Amino acid sequence: MGSEKVVIIGGVAAGTKAAAKAARENQDLEIVVLTMDRHVSYAGCGLPYYIGDVIREEKELLVKRPKDFRADFGIEVIIDTEAIKILPADKTVLAKDLNTGEKRSFAYDKLVLATGASPFIPPVEGAKLGNIITVRTVREATAVKKLLSERDIKDAVVVGGGMNGLEIAENLFLKGIKTTVVELAPHILPAHDADIALNVQKYLAEKGIRVLAGTAVKSFIDDGNGDVGAVAAGEELLKADLVVLSVGVRPNVNLARECGILLGSTGAIAVNEKMETNLNGIYAVGDRAENINLITDRHVWYPMGSTANKAGRIAGINLAATGAEDTMQGVLGTSVLKLFDLNIAKTGLSERDARALGYKVETVLVPAPDRAHYYPGSREIVTKLIVDRESRKVLGGQIFGEGVVDKPIDILVTAISFGATVDQLARLDLAYAPPFSTALGTTIVAANVMMNKLAGKFTGVGPLALKEKMAAGALLVDVRIDKEYFVRSIPGSINIPLRRLLERVDELDREKEIILNCKVGLRSYLALLKLKGLGFEKVSILEGGLVAYPFETE
Amino acid sequence: MGSEKVVIIGGVAAGTKAAAKAARENQDLEIVVLTMDRHVSYAGCGLPYYIGDVIREEKELLVKRPKDFRADFGIEVIIDTEAIKILPADKTVLAKDLNTGEKRSFAYDKLVLATGASPFIPPVEGAKLGNIITVRTVREATAVKKLLSERDIKDAVVVGGGMNGLEIAENLFLKGIKTTVVELAPHILPAHDADIALNVQKYLAEKGIRVLAGTAVKSFIDDGNGDVGAVAAGEELLKADLVVLSVGVRPNVNLARECGILLGSTGAIAVNEKMETNLNGIYAVGDRAENINLITDRHVWYPMGSTANKAGRIAGINLAATGAEDTMQGVLGTSVLKLFDLNIAKTGLSERDARALGYKVETVLVPAPDRAHYYPGSREIVTKLIVDRESRKVLGGQIFGEGVVDKPIDILVTAISFGATVDQLARLDLAYAPPFSTALGTTIVAANVMMNKLAGKFTGVGPLALKEKMAAGALLVDVRIDKEYFVRSIPGSINIPLRRLLERVDELDREKEIILNCKVGLRSYLALLKLKGLGFEKVSILEGGLVAYPFETE
Repeated sequence: MGSEKVVIIGGVAAGTKAAAKAARENQDLEIVVLTMDRHVSYAGCGLPYYIGDVIREEKELLVKRPKDFRADFGIEVIIDTEAIKILPADKTVLAKDLNTGEKRSFAYDKLVLATGASPFIPPVEGAKLGNIITVRTVREATAVKKLLSERDIKDAVVVGGGMNGLEIAENLFLKGIKTTVVELAPHILPAHDADIALNVQKYLAEKGIRVLAGTAVKSFIDDGNGDVGAVAAGEELLKADLVVLSVGVRPNVNLARECGILLGSTGAIAVNEKMETNLNGIYAVGDRAENINLITDRHVWYPMGSTANKAGRIAGINLAATGAEDTMQGVLGTSVLKLFDLNIAKTGLSERDARALGYKVETVLVPAPDRAHYYPGSREIVTKLIVDRESRKVLGGQIFGEGVVDKPIDILVTAISFGATVDQLARLDLAYAPPFSTALGTTIVAANVMMNKLAGKFTGVGPLALKEKMAAGALLVDVRIDKEYFVRSIPGSINIPLRRLLERVDELDREKEIILNCKVGLRSYLALLKLKGLGFEKVSILEGGLVAYPFETE
Repeated sequence: MGSEKVVIIGGVAAGTKAAAKAARENQDLEIVVLTMDRHVSYAGCGLPYYIGDVIREEKELLVKRPKDFRADFGIEVIIDTEAIKILPADKTVLAKDLNTGEKRSFAYDKLVLATGASPFIPPVEGAKLGNIITVRTVREATAVKKLLSERDIKDAVVVGGGMNGLEIAENLFLKGIKTTVVELAPHILPAHDADIALNVQKYLAEKGIRVLAGTAVKSFIDDGNGDVGAVAAGEELLKADLVVLSVGVRPNVNLARECGILLGSTGAIAVNEKMETNLNGIYAVGDRAENINLITDRHVWYPMGSTANKAGRIAGINLAATGAEDTMQGVLGTSVLKLFDLNIAKTGLSERDARALGYKVETVLVPAPDRAHYYPGSREIVTKLIVDRESRKVLGGQIFGEGVVDKPIDILVTAISFGATVDQLARLDLAYAPPFSTALGTTIVAANVMMNKLAGKFTGVGPLALKEKMAAGALLVDVRIDKEYFVRSIPGSINIPLRRLLERVDELDREKEIILNCKVGLRSYLALLKLKGLGFEKVSILEGGLVAYPFETE
């Protein structure tokens, strides 16, 4: 009885996870991993930090070397080798040694496709000039580090303001390089809602990173030596001796498509919940495989390291065929990133997505401290909750601030995974001690505000709608004390401190729409209650107050 | 039409929360808060940090002053006033001014009892000596601070090793005071399981705080001036010029009981989910009211700030009687605390509780880094999961380590609140980026280990059972590399590194029970798979490895 042969194409997160898990499940398997790279099992998400010297040594990024797989799991890893053809009828993979050009064939009983995704190179003139790079592999990141140490790079342009592009921009900036981010979409972090992303944009500008959103790159211009010297973006010419392209990735599906494996509507490989493709014995995992969105039940393609690891593990269990089975649950497209001291997290549907899908959407924007205000290190975060008014279910959340955001986003992830309503969210018995949280915690505070809003206790105006409202005649009344108002206020607002509201109420025109604002929204809410008690009808509050206001103040 | 009168007895978390919420809900209410204290709405959970000067000013602890309640909510707060009798038939509360002795009566339509809990004073000889104190109020904490600044306090004994006692011990120690904790129960943190609590005990000892667990205080000894000079505890006489009593609190229920309000089986006031007592129009909230445990559906009494705040809010909504209603969900007894750089969190049932309740319990003890191992600041935490083998539901969790524990405990809180199985826990799409998490995250890693254990892929030996097993002849085999073994190992273990296991397998007696250990458990698991592959039958792994091992190593 020959042992079953498993071939895995691809050697980063999902591929090596599938290999290691399969080996642990079933020691009789004969497992081969083929990879085009020299490195396997490396920390792809750590590459921006390696460039920025937050992570100093290449070896810190390498989780396991090929020989570790042999020693610990009996897995053979074959590097510098490209799989060039799959022959499903023969259950064979043809591969080529990238150094010698020699071809070899590998027989398989089970095949796992884990070749990931490749960076998209925009079809722009000059894109092949020197010092225009992508950063997806340890090899590429090491090349960037070498460039930075050998040449006096002064100006960098990062094309693409998604999460990875921004992480790279931060790390280049921290190396003393003047850095500009160019994003085609109307704002950076295109998957996030504008009210969140514009706050991040403002923060980056304050830190010194220039952001050009809604701007197309027209061409890359030669410095005379075949390297990039400038970038034509929108109407500007940006000096640049280094360009990083980070405009997204495309799943590597050619190998699969050529042998008859079906793709899904997203362009990635279609798999069932066991990570099986349409061809018997062939699995697909990682950045090349589709997922199901847990809320909408639609196919999505989120190329994320966390999903890749889970999928790899599940494929490993299923292909080991020991009787055990595991299946992939839908995903929520959860993300988190850190830029300088700002943390930004997202899960579930954005407000924009939810509206496009036809939900009756309600949102709130709620600043609150991440731990007891008197405990050292307490920082404000802003929570945006997106809820379906009919079912009261939480559809998504976005959180940003210098405080802790990964905890509350993971609470939302867990709650949404179980179909939580905002009412259930408000009742969670979360952990409290002053070094960790406030008594209720930001999640419950946001849920309480949402419950008040759903109950009609107040109406809110989002920061993006404010200008238009004011142009149409609405009066913005800042109810903070005068000391706060004089330090920083929204242009066009007038100041009536909450405690003087009753005596000064005659200054307000009852016919006009009145929008109340304060720092976080609490005093606005108290002012709204007072004005409503006095019979004012057209009163609302500025959602998120000054803390979440993403535009210029004075 | 006169407005409805609301009287609230008690002015800390739950009482002021109920008052403020009721005022916001219904501006027609006439609300009076009676409190025996001089301070209202203070941060009770911050008191230990105030003693340790982490929080420097008394005023930082005071969330709102009485005059703020008047200005913002129209609420009248009457300080230094004790409610001495409730007359339900007359809907009246009799109260006494503690300064003048003057009596006043307050009519109510709705009454909220929020007088909290009082520290328990153990009936031990000498308990009334000077410098033997409890720390439940700002007044008491300020008195301790004064004592520390005016007298040269050198030795402190904290009686009671619960969360509050340990927080106080840490803060006294940080002030340079030699501190000993005396706990009657077999280990500190009596609500936690021993395998967790003993690790905390070991950590405190390493930091320099002496812990005497399983030790009764026999008497407090006069220093000759009417102040405490020493504590007789167990067989020892401990020098002490300051004693803090922190042996728990008892709900203040006399006032309620005398007027016919029913208590529950826990001794606290029985309330329904709207926080109503058995008497019409009388609510009870905070540290004096019972709750329902969400898992067991039994009545419990967890005097926690987070629960008090939620209950206050719910009572406020319900008594405002605007048509809106809110109800309390069950609680999980969630807690978190920080001691030096060690964080300890707990939710749901402990292993001990779960076994006592008759569940078919399975547990795992899983160390894992809290963020990417290569990202600066990455720290190990240990997750204990407690699961019901039959339903596969998560019953509880305990987490400790120098890394982030409040995030994973809140994920467990949320999951348990929705009746999650361990399989569902393993599939959560949690947020991942290197500064925040590993690709899977500690929760999912622990869930995966539990799934392996439930599937019979390994059997574990808990650290508490190890000694007995070894005494009965089991062989402890440490499979780390020799360099690691020589630095630190468990007494009696032998070293066979994982990668040399196959060549040295003849050194192992197949008839003996073999327990494998390594740093975190992963290499032990690989070794177990290898040995099982070779036909070994009596092999298990030391749960939690050296990281979670709470006893002396060499």
